[in-house]
Amino acid sequence: MTYCVALRLDRGLVFMSDTRTNAGVDNISSCRKMFSWSDGESSITLLTAGNLATTQAVVSLINERLKSPGERSPSILGQPSMFVVARMVGDLLKEEIARAGAGQMNADAGTFGATLILGGQVRGSAPRLFLIYPEGNFIEAGDDMPWFQSGETKYGRPILVRAFDPAMSFAAAVKLLMVSYDSTIKANLSVGLPLDLQIYETDSFQPGKTLRIEADDPQYHAISEGWSEALRAAFEQLPDVEL
Amino acid sequence: MTYCVALRLDRGLVFMSDTRTNAGVDNISSCRKMFSWSDGESSITLLTAGNLATTQAVVSLINERLKSPGERSPSILGQPSMFVVARMVGDLLKEEIARAGAGQMNADAGTFGATLILGGQVRGSAPRLFLIYPEGNFIEAGDDMPWFQSGETKYGRPILVRAFDPAMSFAAAVKLLMVSYDSTIKANLSVGLPLDLQIYETDSFQPGKTLRIEADDPQYHAISEGWSEALRAAFEQLPDVEL
Repeated sequence: MTYCVALRLDRGLVFMSDTRTNAGVDNISSCRKMFSWSDGESSITLLTAGNLATTQAVVSLINERLKSPGERSPSILGQPSMFVVARMVGDLLKEEIARAGAGQMNADAGTFGATLILGGQVRGSAPRLFLIYPEGNFIEAGDDMPWFQSGETKYGRPILVRAFDPAMSFAAAVKLLMVSYDSTIKANLSVGLPLDLQIYETDSFQPGKTLRIEADDPQYHAISEGWSEALRAAFEQLPDVEL
Repeated sequence: MTYCVALRLDRGLVFMSDTRTNAGVDNISSCRKMFSWSDGESSITLLTAGNLATTQAVVSLINERLKSPGERSPSILGQPSMFVVARMVGDLLKEEIARAGAGQMNADAGTFGATLILGGQVRGSAPRLFLIYPEGNFIEAGDDMPWFQSGETKYGRPILVRAFDPAMSFAAAVKLLMVSYDSTIKANLSVGLPLDLQIYETDSFQPGKTLRIEADDPQYHAISEGWSEALRAAFEQLPDVEL
C-alpha cells in the first residue's frame, strides 16, 4: 500500500512517508515517495501514494520542466501561489493517469491511479497543504482538517485524532508521526521502514530537517516499545467497567 | 459498515457488535447483529456483518430449524461439536448468498456477501471461536490469533494488538472492547452506538451477562473521555525525539 502523512502546524509543515512498494506480498521493494524542490522563493514537498509508474512519471515531468520550463509546460518553482502549483501538479497527475490507461483493454479506473499530498510555501503567503486526487482536483488543509493521510490511513488515525495539536513542536509532531506509523506498520505488511521525514519551517523557503529513519533507528524503536508500554499503562488507568 | 469483535480469553468468550446498518450515509438505521442460542448442553453466539438480508435470512433459518429440526436441516443445538455447528452455519451462509445472487443481472460477488463470527461451547470440549467467510469456510481462533474482528476492523485494531491479554478479566476485556469501538466510532460513521455485549463464561453452557450499551451510557462515555486523556498523557510521557 503506502502510508503518507503531512501535518499543518502553527510553525510549519511536517511530512512523513514510508518507502515500501509492492506488486503482491511476494514482490516488495523499497522506494522513496517524498520529493522536494525549492529556490529560496518557494519550497514544495510532494508525497506520493498509488501506482509507482504514475507517480514516478509525475515527478520526472516536474524535474524535466524545471530544467527547461516553457510557456506550455511551466516549472513548479517561480509560481505565484501554492494553489497554482497544486493545479499544475493535479493536471500532470490526471494526464499521466489518462495516458497510462489509454488503449488498455483490461484496466479499470483505479489501475494507474495515485494520490498526492502537496505542501509548501510561496513567498507572500502562508504555508499551504493539499491532497490531490487521481482526478487531478484537490482539497486543502485548514484549521478543521489540519493534516492529510494517504494510502493505509486507518490504523494510524486514532492517535492523530487524539494527540494532534497545531501548536505542538516539530519534535512532538515527529514523535506523533512515529507512533502513527508504528501502529500502521504493525498491522499492514505493505507499509514498511525506512521512513522519510521532512520538516518545513514557516518562512524558511527551503526544506528543513530531512532524514531517513532506518529500520534499526534507535529513536524509532524507543518510541515503538515505549508506546506499547505507555498504551498498556494508559489502558490500566482507565476506570473499571462494572458489569 | 459494521464492527464486530469476539475475544477468546482463558475464562471464556466476550462478544461485542455495533447496531448501525446503512444503505448509504443518507439511509442509516439501527439493527441487532448479535444472536445467541443455548440449551444447557451448548451455548452459541453469532455476530453478523455484511448484507443484512443475507444475515437475517441465516438467523431466520437457524431459528426455524430449531423449531422443527429434520434430518436434512438439523438444528444448531444438540450438535456434537462447535466445528459441526460452524460447518452448518457456514453452509447456510453460502447457500443464502448463492440464492440471493441467482438470476441477478448486475450483482458482483460481494453484493450479497456476509461474514460471521461464531463462538460458543458444546459440553465435552473447550469454548471455540470461528470466523466464517462468505464462501462458507472458516478459520478458528487460537493462542496465536486469539480474537476475530469483522467489518471495519482497522481503527480499533492497534489497541487490541497492544493491550489484549488472554488472562484478562471480563471487566478488563469489556473496557478494551469499549476503547476499540470508541476509536472506530470516532472515525467511521457506518459504525455506531448502541453496542451489544455478551459474555460467555467457560463451562456455563448458557449466555452470561448480556447488555446493550446505549448512546448515553455513562460508563462508555467515561471510557471514551478517559481514553482521550490517557492517550494524550501516554503520548506526553514518551521519550522526546531529537531532530
